[in-house]
Amino acid sequence: MSKNTTISMPVIRRLPRYYRFLYDLKNNGISRISSGELSKRMRLTASQIRQDLNCFGGFGQQGAGYDVNQLYDEIGRILGIPEPTKAILVGAGNLGKAVANHINFETRGFRLVSVFDDAPGLIGQDLNGHIIRPTTELKTICEQSRPAMAILCIPKEAAPSIVDSLLACGIKGFWNFSHYDINYDHPDAIVENVHMSDSLMTLSYLMNND
Amino acid sequence: MSKNTTISMPVIRRLPRYYRFLYDLKNNGISRISSGELSKRMRLTASQIRQDLNCFGGFGQQGAGYDVNQLYDEIGRILGIPEPTKAILVGAGNLGKAVANHINFETRGFRLVSVFDDAPGLIGQDLNGHIIRPTTELKTICEQSRPAMAILCIPKEAAPSIVDSLLACGIKGFWNFSHYDINYDHPDAIVENVHMSDSLMTLSYLMNND
Repeated sequence: MSKNTTISMPVIRRLPRYYRFLYDLKNNGISRISSGELSKRMRLTASQIRQDLNCFGGFGQQGAGYDVNQLYDEIGRILGIPEPTKAILVGAGNLGKAVANHINFETRGFRLVSVFDDAPGLIGQDLNGHIIRPTTELKTICEQSRPAMAILCIPKEAAPSIVDSLLACGIKGFWNFSHYDINYDHPDAIVENVHMSDSLMTLSYLMNND
Repeated sequence: MSKNTTISMPVIRRLPRYYRFLYDLKNNGISRISSGELSKRMRLTASQIRQDLNCFGGFGQQGAGYDVNQLYDEIGRILGIPEPTKAILVGAGNLGKAVANHINFETRGFRLVSVFDDAPGLIGQDLNGHIIRPTTELKTICEQSRPAMAILCIPKEAAPSIVDSLLACGIKGFWNFSHYDINYDHPDAIVENVHMSDSLMTLSYLMNND
């Protein structure tokens, strides 16, 4: 499949959404869907859907709609799901625990290989089959298992020095819950920021301006 | 202040981000900032910033930049922060606990008034000063405290019937972690979906297509 190399972020951000909807269709035994029907479910226009999928080479046949299983597998492949990237979790407090327990990394393109936290009460505990280690062991563990991604569930103040260490250990990507603006200091790092409270404030706006 | 009533979602979604950056500036004792300098920090163009803020009536003076405290307070007011909306949490598992412990609702426009979960091991426990109640008490509690927003940290399968009950109890807005597409069944509900795993898959894409 030919790939357009200048794919815009909004298109990329819609891919996981397609993947989610296709997963549901698959699970409901639906094997073929038109862009019109997919558009109704996803509340995107049919032409938007065709445009999006064309960025990745197009998958549909004129008049026959999309093969759900094939499209699901293909988008999964584009997202890098079949060859999971090794990840570590830094910060095993409430949020880190929720992330580790709530997210099925394997079906999202990652494999959690190690968990770190410096709180004396947490070190040595088990989190989802991983022993929580102090960050003094970061370097050794990263040399052994060579993770490429770090999930940051630490306070903003602690983040800059941890990020420096992680970059030195070969970490390339960050799933960043910390509110520290990694790219301001490290423009080349691959960063996905999760600002849950931004979403909450957007809801506050919408409820106050309904 | 005059308010443009056709403000686009991308502009609305940037407001919490302005609010966050202004909070940091305030905390660092910076009382005035130009759109140029704000643009460097936020990685938006200066003209984008001026356009965004003009949607809400504009705050800057030509050549003098923005008054950080005034802009912070004004955006807070637009977001509805000073008059918090009452909220309930439904689902007090790992994710619900993390949300309750991790998010400072009061500074984000909401006040948590009650927590619900039907797991026998959770009912009666304390979560951040709130006793976890069974959902059979939803109606009574909602009649008493009249919350307008519900945070949904429940599995997708459990969500449709809970959402029906909540709408009947007068809930208008949902901070939805459940992956259930509320607006498909209830187009008028005000919904902010949090799909943490979409963000993770976007990161997977970016790391595989660097």
